[in-house]
Amino acid sequence: MKYSKRVVGVKASEIREILKLAARHDIISFAGGLPAPELFPIREMEEVSRTVLEEMGQEALQYSPTEGYEPLRDFIAGRMAKTGVKTDRDEILIISGSQQGLDFAGKIFLDPGDTVLCESPTYLGAVNAFRAYEGNFREVATDNEGMIPEDLEKALKETPDVKFIYVIPDFQNPSGRTWSLDRRKALVELANQYGIPIVEDNPYGELIYEGERLPSIRSLDTKGLVMFLGTFSKTFAPGLRIGWINAPKEILAKCIMVKQSSDVQSSSISQREIAVFVEKYDFEKHVEKIKSTYRKRRDLMMDSMGKYFPDSVEWTHPAGGLFTWVIVPDSIDTKELMERTLEETKVAYVPGASFFPNGGVKNTMRLNFSNMPEDKIVEGIRRLGELLKREIG
Amino acid sequence: MKYSKRVVGVKASEIREILKLAARHDIISFAGGLPAPELFPIREMEEVSRTVLEEMGQEALQYSPTEGYEPLRDFIAGRMAKTGVKTDRDEILIISGSQQGLDFAGKIFLDPGDTVLCESPTYLGAVNAFRAYEGNFREVATDNEGMIPEDLEKALKETPDVKFIYVIPDFQNPSGRTWSLDRRKALVELANQYGIPIVEDNPYGELIYEGERLPSIRSLDTKGLVMFLGTFSKTFAPGLRIGWINAPKEILAKCIMVKQSSDVQSSSISQREIAVFVEKYDFEKHVEKIKSTYRKRRDLMMDSMGKYFPDSVEWTHPAGGLFTWVIVPDSIDTKELMERTLEETKVAYVPGASFFPNGGVKNTMRLNFSNMPEDKIVEGIRRLGELLKREIG
Repeated sequence: MKYSKRVVGVKASEIREILKLAARHDIISFAGGLPAPELFPIREMEEVSRTVLEEMGQEALQYSPTEGYEPLRDFIAGRMAKTGVKTDRDEILIISGSQQGLDFAGKIFLDPGDTVLCESPTYLGAVNAFRAYEGNFREVATDNEGMIPEDLEKALKETPDVKFIYVIPDFQNPSGRTWSLDRRKALVELANQYGIPIVEDNPYGELIYEGERLPSIRSLDTKGLVMFLGTFSKTFAPGLRIGWINAPKEILAKCIMVKQSSDVQSSSISQREIAVFVEKYDFEKHVEKIKSTYRKRRDLMMDSMGKYFPDSVEWTHPAGGLFTWVIVPDSIDTKELMERTLEETKVAYVPGASFFPNGGVKNTMRLNFSNMPEDKIVEGIRRLGELLKREIG
Repeated sequence: MKYSKRVVGVKASEIREILKLAARHDIISFAGGLPAPELFPIREMEEVSRTVLEEMGQEALQYSPTEGYEPLRDFIAGRMAKTGVKTDRDEILIISGSQQGLDFAGKIFLDPGDTVLCESPTYLGAVNAFRAYEGNFREVATDNEGMIPEDLEKALKETPDVKFIYVIPDFQNPSGRTWSLDRRKALVELANQYGIPIVEDNPYGELIYEGERLPSIRSLDTKGLVMFLGTFSKTFAPGLRIGWINAPKEILAKCIMVKQSSDVQSSSISQREIAVFVEKYDFEKHVEKIKSTYRKRRDLMMDSMGKYFPDSVEWTHPAGGLFTWVIVPDSIDTKELMERTLEETKVAYVPGASFFPNGGVKNTMRLNFSNMPEDKIVEGIRRLGELLKREIG
């Protein structure tokens, strides 16, 4: 039996194995990227679910248009204004979580051997999605303000077959960093100059804990080059699998076509449930509640790291999102350390190496602060700090 | 901007445009393949939805394992016995409708230029899914019992880069035909001999109106070559987007990997809703209710065609499923006739040409009998018969 080249030799994600271990009840896990389930609007969901079935049961259970449910697309189009985008439902396609948008970006842009320019480090799920279309990666150097324009320009000049630039400008996964406005503008200018599309992945933008939300790359798009991915996974619930693509009509038309052959449409009923939820309840207030919990957890993790981590360890201060990025001394290989950390401290993290598609960086780790209660954050960071102190010696 | 080769030049499906017209309220539509929404278990769905949220709300709204919800996978594994398959949950992956299984078959097997052997005619949605991986098609000649083994063997011998054989053995879409047991056995023998996997698409198998259900191709698999696709779209509701792949572990492992990068997992809540539905209610009885309605509609369509269609028109007698296949005299091009049929009779069908990936057959049409009430079936067939009489002259 012969498989396609794209799946031959691809191994199951290392992270996945870590996450399986991390799910054990005795583990304090900073490894996943899960929202806090105690904030899910379960009672409201019961209410909207009943409303949908009573008021539009037949259509909620039937096939429905590939593009998605119009009232939900209208709501999303309006909500895009928060990122400075003026748009309407004709530029919105409902998808099954923003991961599907990454799959579609690969599907519509990549031929085998084409290159994606991405941040270094970047989101592992995107790397896997693009690898499924045999894409290669050129990592662009980053600092605390985003991709460094000089290196981006160098990459655009020197790399053959660049098909798109993939970025997570708000509260990046894994680094927790946010792009400055200047860097956003520089990115769009370079993309315009070279005629290269941008895939802007924005699952965390709503979860901002300090400062003002910056304009999205999509809002700065003047040439119809930006495809924006959004999701309800972090502001409502990931279990429903509802996200969206906001893109110029030409790009969106290609996405609609691949949506049809990929899975026809996203859930008719879940789309209506979210539409009724945002109509019946105060979505803004719901998001504020999530933000207030996560902000507290972030602060606690930051404070605890200051208290318990050795002086030679550095970390980012995320203004939003779910993650912080820890840089330990060069002498430590966080992947090698992982097994022992689990055994000795019962704490889990994700070794940073997974987020560099071309490898090479070994002394980083990603920590998630949204999914653990306050006491476990303090205790987990304390244990991790002690282990690091022993390692550094 | 440069798109991938797979999406350049691909046009939106013609059928899609027809279906949009057919959705108008003044149209009697035999064009779609929709289940009858009046049979959706709306009240039961309200009940199970409440149960799921009350008893396992947090996990129903959270991320969950890619493979799917274990109790649902157990139920499906048990249900596979109806097609003669002994299996367990480790051979079941939950997917977002069986269309996603077609996408995955393309993704794990096809490199650009590879060939799929398929029935002639075959399901358009599969053709589009495989084309997205730049697959070619070699149509294998069929008769009322399935693929003709001599032509299948010829195809296997003569065609380079055959990656799999795609079949819909039960109540085929579009033809309504069912493969005989002998042909099923011959298919598996040839696949074994040439070491070529089989993708068995089985969305309609549960909807059997006469005779005994035949063993699935998967049940005859002796060499781990068969990937079976099933769905709850026809027996529960398509709006939830829940289907499954049942395959040998090696093939399933590849599917799980592409599931992760495609959309992570299918809906946590919908999987639990179906699992609770089959536990709380009598699934068998529910399917029997659907079958009894569709059987009546099929009989009525068959009777009406006998009464109103000209003698030179032929059609299949489906023992199950949703469709019958009509062959009109050579002189009629059903695609050309479509627009006029809509205008003059307000009846919609799907021109058969769409189901031949390599084109060439113009005098066929697919009629659906599941989605129209009885009086409209009689009236629609009467009008269509009159038009055909005028055309044939």
